[in-house]
Amino acid sequence: MSKEETNEELQEEQTNSVDESVVSETTETEVEKSELETAQDELSEMEDKFLRARAEIANMSNRFKNERELLVRYRSQDLGKKLLPSIDNLERAMAIEVDDEQGASLKKGIAMVLESVQAALKEEGIEEIPAMGEPFDPNLHQAVQTIPATDDTPADTIVEVLQKGYKLHDRVLRASMVVVAQ
Amino acid sequence: MSKEETNEELQEEQTNSVDESVVSETTETEVEKSELETAQDELSEMEDKFLRARAEIANMSNRFKNERELLVRYRSQDLGKKLLPSIDNLERAMAIEVDDEQGASLKKGIAMVLESVQAALKEEGIEEIPAMGEPFDPNLHQAVQTIPATDDTPADTIVEVLQKGYKLHDRVLRASMVVVAQ
Repeated sequence: MSKEETNEELQEEQTNSVDESVVSETTETEVEKSELETAQDELSEMEDKFLRARAEIANMSNRFKNERELLVRYRSQDLGKKLLPSIDNLERAMAIEVDDEQGASLKKGIAMVLESVQAALKEEGIEEIPAMGEPFDPNLHQAVQTIPATDDTPADTIVEVLQKGYKLHDRVLRASMVVVAQ
Repeated sequence: MSKEETNEELQEEQTNSVDESVVSETTETEVEKSELETAQDELSEMEDKFLRARAEIANMSNRFKNERELLVRYRSQDLGKKLLPSIDNLERAMAIEVDDEQGASLKKGIAMVLESVQAALKEEGIEEIPAMGEPFDPNLHQAVQTIPATDDTPADTIVEVLQKGYKLHDRVLRASMVVVAQ
């Protein structure tokens, strides 16, 4: 074996070895590229999930804020509605004529209670629906009787209120029962 | 230049070229590894953010569920509290003695109103605090007067209720004003 041959063989071996290394590096690179792509895909998917979760948080927050406001705004709807017959009764009692001190004293007490209950309801947003002399509105008034219209009371005008109606802010708790000119 | 020398030089060039290629591959691999690591780090970070967002959604949902329950449970607290003086007045009116038909008719109306208001409050969870004959409880009762304890009325027993107290579920709307044996 000449020195040159040996040298050549060595060189060839080195080259081969390097070639193998290159092949191996290329395969690893492909594997890593695919891992990288997978990681990038997963990242993009996770980013999407995160953004959707953040949007859901904002939605929930808005939804709760609105719901909370409604719950507070209309919190007295049930109790207020249940108190309406008592107000009717107090007003009916106020209409009774009295001619002695006991009766006057009782009526004074009733007047105080009526005023106090109405004030409490008003603070919660519950008020009488305007009806007498108003144009009839089927959303607020219930016509239980009609009378012929005149010059003073044109058609669709409320001429008598048989039972007061009440609303809580924009919600009707009880429509006014009315007589309407027609 | 001998043939061998040329050959050697060629081999050396090849080897050099291959070596450069190896170096270049290694650098690319390092860049890709670092990109992969970056992507994996970002994925891990994003995953963490997503999990925290999901936990926040669960928290918000629970928090609002509790808040909603409280808002509904205690919704009549304000209106109920404002109605207590009216109940006092109605009860005071019921205590007035009457001896004619008008008075009797008024008291009948007042009794109806009182019953109806109490029923409405009860439906909302508002009830009188038991006091008469009960052991004094500073959380529920306010002692405005004391009398000496006897065998029938041992110390710390409530012997008289000067003003009724009311609670809404577990919350005291107004403590009972009482006289306590001591």
